[in-house]
Amino acid sequence: MSTVAAAFDDGFRATLAALFALRRDVRHFRPDPLPEGVLERLFALARLAPSVGLSEPWRFAIVADPARRTRVRALFEACNQRALAGYDGERAALYARLKLAGLDIAPVQFAAFSDRATEQGAGLGRQTMPETAEYSVVAAIHTIWLAARAEGIGLGWVSILDPAEMPEILDVPRSWRLVGYFCLGRPEEEATIPELQRLGWAARAPMSQNILNR
Amino acid sequence: MSTVAAAFDDGFRATLAALFALRRDVRHFRPDPLPEGVLERLFALARLAPSVGLSEPWRFAIVADPARRTRVRALFEACNQRALAGYDGERAALYARLKLAGLDIAPVQFAAFSDRATEQGAGLGRQTMPETAEYSVVAAIHTIWLAARAEGIGLGWVSILDPAEMPEILDVPRSWRLVGYFCLGRPEEEATIPELQRLGWAARAPMSQNILNR
Repeated sequence: MSTVAAAFDDGFRATLAALFALRRDVRHFRPDPLPEGVLERLFALARLAPSVGLSEPWRFAIVADPARRTRVRALFEACNQRALAGYDGERAALYARLKLAGLDIAPVQFAAFSDRATEQGAGLGRQTMPETAEYSVVAAIHTIWLAARAEGIGLGWVSILDPAEMPEILDVPRSWRLVGYFCLGRPEEEATIPELQRLGWAARAPMSQNILNR
Repeated sequence: MSTVAAAFDDGFRATLAALFALRRDVRHFRPDPLPEGVLERLFALARLAPSVGLSEPWRFAIVADPARRTRVRALFEACNQRALAGYDGERAALYARLKLAGLDIAPVQFAAFSDRATEQGAGLGRQTMPETAEYSVVAAIHTIWLAARAEGIGLGWVSILDPAEMPEILDVPRSWRLVGYFCLGRPEEEATIPELQRLGWAARAPMSQNILNR
């Protein structure tokens, strides 16, 4: 234990900070399949994520079937068109040029759901905030994101989907809540700056602006 | 760039996996204050977390005022008593023995909220799933959690709170949504196994049980 803790030294912390800084939401993938065993390794690490009351409410559906992928792609297109209709002028023109998903190319795709009905954990910690089930799934996704980046693999989070449609498309229980749909693969390029920032959609704010003292 | 990427080598990945495995939800803290500069460093890293449409909807309230801490503590007690009332027999006896928050001792405490009304990011990616604002805050929290653990500092997530009460207690906009309340400090002990597992509240499931192929 102390041996392992000792490995969290200045060098590791600096590389961890670089990992946080270089993680990107990837939308441009290379089509090559992931090396054997990578996906299993990422999901094994995801299991170490925190979950409310140790409930492990994460449920993953790895989507390989072309017909299902086509339906997800169509749902994204429909939702994205509706989103585009909500912007005007230059915003609309810029939005239309953004590439917001790597659904055509990413070799691995999966959906993440939460199962609030799970009996594991006996409901501990989620009586007043049942949404902590979804938050646990987000922590698992973020774990995958970081671990993937450390292997040179990019993840892209697709949220422009109607969550109510997804359980039927992927044939999972209707009670499962979609947390997100994800693309995994080798990125076309590594980038130090978020694409939305590079393209002028949004700028980051100083953190001090978002911290209050009470 | 390639220099940094090259630092993500087998040694780093192994230590990163150990970090995931050794991160704990800490409820037993030492009272000593955190070293100067740690909190600022953790929040600076949190800013590198992914956020939907680069909206950075995270809002943090660092709670130092004893009167506010007392009110949070009282709210936790009330919610925890109600939760206890929902268990019977051995479950109730075990629940009553669990320590579910380090609110009395943790030297640093903060609340995390999401601001869905933020104009940053112009709503991109969150038309169909507005809850992605909260998910962005969770990713920031998980970033703090990992970075803190790499400095030997523990974080405890308190979710046994009525989220509707918290904006008033902490004097933040009523429209902000509570994502969680957090304790930070040196842990009394390092642990390789989650406390809820050690105490027999819940057991982890094999990940394979939670993965479907579609």
